[in-house]
Amino acid sequence: MGAKKKIRKLKLRLKAARQALSLTQPSGSSDGLAGSAPLKKAPLKKAPPPVSPLAPKGGFPTLPQIDGARFAAAAAGVRYTTGRLDVALMELCAGSSVAAVFTRSATRAAPVLDGEEKLARLAGAGTATDAGFAIIVNAGNANAFTGGAGRASVQAVSTAVAERMAIPADHVFMSSTGVIGEPLAHDRIVDVLDTLAADLDSAALPKAAEAIRTTDTFAKGAAAEIAVDGGTIRIAGIAKGSGMIAPDMATMLVYIFTDAPIDQPVLQAMVAGASDRTFNCITVDGDTSTSDTLICGATGKAQGVARITSRDSAAGKAFEAGLHGVMLDLAHQVVRDGEGATKFVEIRVTGARSDADARKVALATANSPLVKTAIAGEDPNWGRIVMAVGKSGAEADRDLLAIRLGDIAIAEKGWVAESYREEDGAAYMQQQDLVIGIDLGLAKGEAVVWTCDLTHQYISINADYRS
Amino acid sequence: MGAKKKIRKLKLRLKAARQALSLTQPSGSSDGLAGSAPLKKAPLKKAPPPVSPLAPKGGFPTLPQIDGARFAAAAAGVRYTTGRLDVALMELCAGSSVAAVFTRSATRAAPVLDGEEKLARLAGAGTATDAGFAIIVNAGNANAFTGGAGRASVQAVSTAVAERMAIPADHVFMSSTGVIGEPLAHDRIVDVLDTLAADLDSAALPKAAEAIRTTDTFAKGAAAEIAVDGGTIRIAGIAKGSGMIAPDMATMLVYIFTDAPIDQPVLQAMVAGASDRTFNCITVDGDTSTSDTLICGATGKAQGVARITSRDSAAGKAFEAGLHGVMLDLAHQVVRDGEGATKFVEIRVTGARSDADARKVALATANSPLVKTAIAGEDPNWGRIVMAVGKSGAEADRDLLAIRLGDIAIAEKGWVAESYREEDGAAYMQQQDLVIGIDLGLAKGEAVVWTCDLTHQYISINADYRS
Repeated sequence: MGAKKKIRKLKLRLKAARQALSLTQPSGSSDGLAGSAPLKKAPLKKAPPPVSPLAPKGGFPTLPQIDGARFAAAAAGVRYTTGRLDVALMELCAGSSVAAVFTRSATRAAPVLDGEEKLARLAGAGTATDAGFAIIVNAGNANAFTGGAGRASVQAVSTAVAERMAIPADHVFMSSTGVIGEPLAHDRIVDVLDTLAADLDSAALPKAAEAIRTTDTFAKGAAAEIAVDGGTIRIAGIAKGSGMIAPDMATMLVYIFTDAPIDQPVLQAMVAGASDRTFNCITVDGDTSTSDTLICGATGKAQGVARITSRDSAAGKAFEAGLHGVMLDLAHQVVRDGEGATKFVEIRVTGARSDADARKVALATANSPLVKTAIAGEDPNWGRIVMAVGKSGAEADRDLLAIRLGDIAIAEKGWVAESYREEDGAAYMQQQDLVIGIDLGLAKGEAVVWTCDLTHQYISINADYRS
Repeated sequence: MGAKKKIRKLKLRLKAARQALSLTQPSGSSDGLAGSAPLKKAPLKKAPPPVSPLAPKGGFPTLPQIDGARFAAAAAGVRYTTGRLDVALMELCAGSSVAAVFTRSATRAAPVLDGEEKLARLAGAGTATDAGFAIIVNAGNANAFTGGAGRASVQAVSTAVAERMAIPADHVFMSSTGVIGEPLAHDRIVDVLDTLAADLDSAALPKAAEAIRTTDTFAKGAAAEIAVDGGTIRIAGIAKGSGMIAPDMATMLVYIFTDAPIDQPVLQAMVAGASDRTFNCITVDGDTSTSDTLICGATGKAQGVARITSRDSAAGKAFEAGLHGVMLDLAHQVVRDGEGATKFVEIRVTGARSDADARKVALATANSPLVKTAIAGEDPNWGRIVMAVGKSGAEADRDLLAIRLGDIAIAEKGWVAESYREEDGAAYMQQQDLVIGIDLGLAKGEAVVWTCDLTHQYISINADYRS
């Protein structure tokens, strides 16, 4: 190892140690909550996290306004007592189509169970309706594992929102994210409904993106404009999530709005399909939230655009591609805000016996603590990738396996590639965005997943702070 | 939080940070390798790890000598050049029965593939044989993902051992642990065979336990003596493993010796069965080695003991119970040497629809980074356990779920238990050995797994060091 490289390494090590050291010291603001409302559990005591180094360079994007959709946010003090925004209200006009996907966790939270039932009734009812919709979201309390009281909270809020907006309670979707196992102070949400309703504004989606954050280090938004026969369809989406986040459990929440005129079953099929190729292909720590929710509302207000009644029409295909793009963008932003992440990693698996097998290999690699720590250490430790392939449960033949880092062939035919030089691998690993290619050499199955590295910061966020 | 508790917390944090800091500084011995043999990759440069805080208090146990089994260890310089023991030879007398289990990884190492074939031939050949057996183990190089050269290395060593010991090459089992993807310098092993053979000694099993270590912080041994009709059966076992270990990949290697007179198929069934309830129930990081191997040799020399030809005989049952105890003890020691571990955790799942479902829940909990970091932070964060149950894929009903920490009921009937006080949970989490109980309330399925916590030290070991 050259002296220069050695010095660089040592500097990195010292930096990491100093970071660890500074992170374990109590922050100056740690006593600032003494006068807060008496909660059963003390609020988290930590300085706001610095913005992820992987955050989009341009900041929050400009989102197009969606005709028929309005937004508002307020500080209800659900858990946080610092006056930060923690409740968002989103309104969709009469005639809108609403599609949604929810976590498959067996311990789903009360708002998720409620949302599933409402979606099923919507799907049963056919297409357009003569009443609008509302989505109400709170941060700070996940209303998960709260028994009968949790369901009662969802009903209380849904009923209040329905009355205030003059829509059926069945048209109110609720999402909650934050601490679990504690009763939701739903009165605090009801108390700000008048303010929220008065503030509704087509331009306020970025404010809603702020309000739904928990430990996200940046607000997440994405948009698309799609030219179709007769006019333009606009899509604007927001998301929150950065792994399963402290204080207790994170949640990925995604809200997408479009002025596309589209039948509910078609929208539902598109949303479910795109979800499988975007949000279901990302992983930070392999943990699954009790509350993950994606809701897409289509107002139908795009001028001159004919109603989309099929995925196979030209407009249907164009819209679905645009929707996929927005969802992929938001999904990547969630990974880029992964707890403690310093690297954004794409894992491309090809040559598997089936797509399902390829996905197994990709997820085994993306969730391996050893692969993730090697990436954090900028170590081209391809042996750990071989290990992950082996443990995945997918069919694999060691002697057909090939591994690449970006364009660099590392391993092929069951051994290190003849052309491979460790220096090349080490140089590649210093990049912020990495692509790991795994070819199993068996058949045509493929999969792509996105993940981040596993760092000291992840441990600090999840082990050191909550008391 | 009381001032006393706060001070304790802060002290712990400072200690952790200082540890992290001290670990990242180059150790005084880091340049001691300048004169070493020219390897393609520089040897690991770090101070020997301190002994795990979870190591057995009594140190290495006294092992009974097993009549018919002898052991030796030598420093061959396979990878380490500091004169440390890195090769072990183990001999079993003619007439012995040998059973083994291997990793199920699809990218198994060359010695594992070789061992599987030899075991299959042994099982096919029936019971006792008129030739002895040898087991040769090296640390420092796993001979994994080394293509055709890897197989040739195994053959070269096996042939040399067979010639030296005057036994068939089919009776020589080899294990290798250490760095992967690099050719094994097998000549160095062959070069010490004469020394090893000359040193063979019934009392040298502890020396073999030293030689097979890689980054283990302590040598692992366990023993049992079982009184059966006519006499006493002795069992002595050694193991290595502490997670999937730096530099590249760890391996769990286990060697158990007994003087039991027992048919090979019966021994194989017992070993496989006990493996499923011991070594297959532990997890440090959810990663699976390419090289895990367990070999059990029975010499049949126990005086006065009738041959065991069935698991159901009184002697068969007594022996199997003793074997299970030795394997469980060794398995727990591997967890207690988990990389960076500060807590030993038993996860007991009951009330599942099936044993398989219970195992899914237990492993999902044991492998969850969020559960493991909460344990590291001594945080009774039962919400993360609810999350792990939900993501496991096992059937679960939130409203029947009950969670306990030791004897403390935390959650029941889908909500926090009425009797639960956070202080009790927090006090319990400060213990070094923890039991997490999860009852699904559905049926009779159960499972137990053992794991450790996920700490900064794990990240340091796996991310910071290899260059």
